[in-house]
Amino acid sequence: MHDSQYLGYAAGIITTLAFLPQVFRIIRTRKTRDISLLWAFAMNTGIILWLFYGIAKNDLPMIAANSISLVLLMIILYCKLRFR
Amino acid sequence: MHDSQYLGYAAGIITTLAFLPQVFRIIRTRKTRDISLLWAFAMNTGIILWLFYGIAKNDLPMIAANSISLVLLMIILYCKLRFR
Repeated sequence: MHDSQYLGYAAGIITTLAFLPQVFRIIRTRKTRDISLLWAFAMNTGIILWLFYGIAKNDLPMIAANSISLVLLMIILYCKLRFR
Repeated sequence: MHDSQYLGYAAGIITTLAFLPQVFRIIRTRKTRDISLLWAFAMNTGIILWLFYGIAKNDLPMIAANSISLVLLMIILYCKLRFR
């Protein structure tokens, strides 16, 4: 594994795990007022494209990170629509 | 430019612009209660690593997208600390 792969995995792990405290906070408080719906919608759309980009470039850190981020962002978007 | 580069630029433009409505919302409402501080901190850290990864792989869509995302995420983190 090249050194840059480690960097990619570290970046992917951090930006992916970053969504966990946000998901926990929303589920605990059931409040999403300060979160932009457009942000949540655009992030889901964009992360799907990053995932396809990772697949196109056969880039494992990007594929792994964006797959998990997408699941967490779908939860955030669902909660934003559910708990207005 | 390969087709995958267009995909990367589209992904980068969307996930970067996604932070704009969130920044505008925070500046307008001056409320950040529903946003996780840990999310904002971890995203800043992770995007710095993605930026270095993009530089290491000489991947222009990643460099461009993560540079702008970083600026917007720094604003969000600043506001989260400022407007508790």
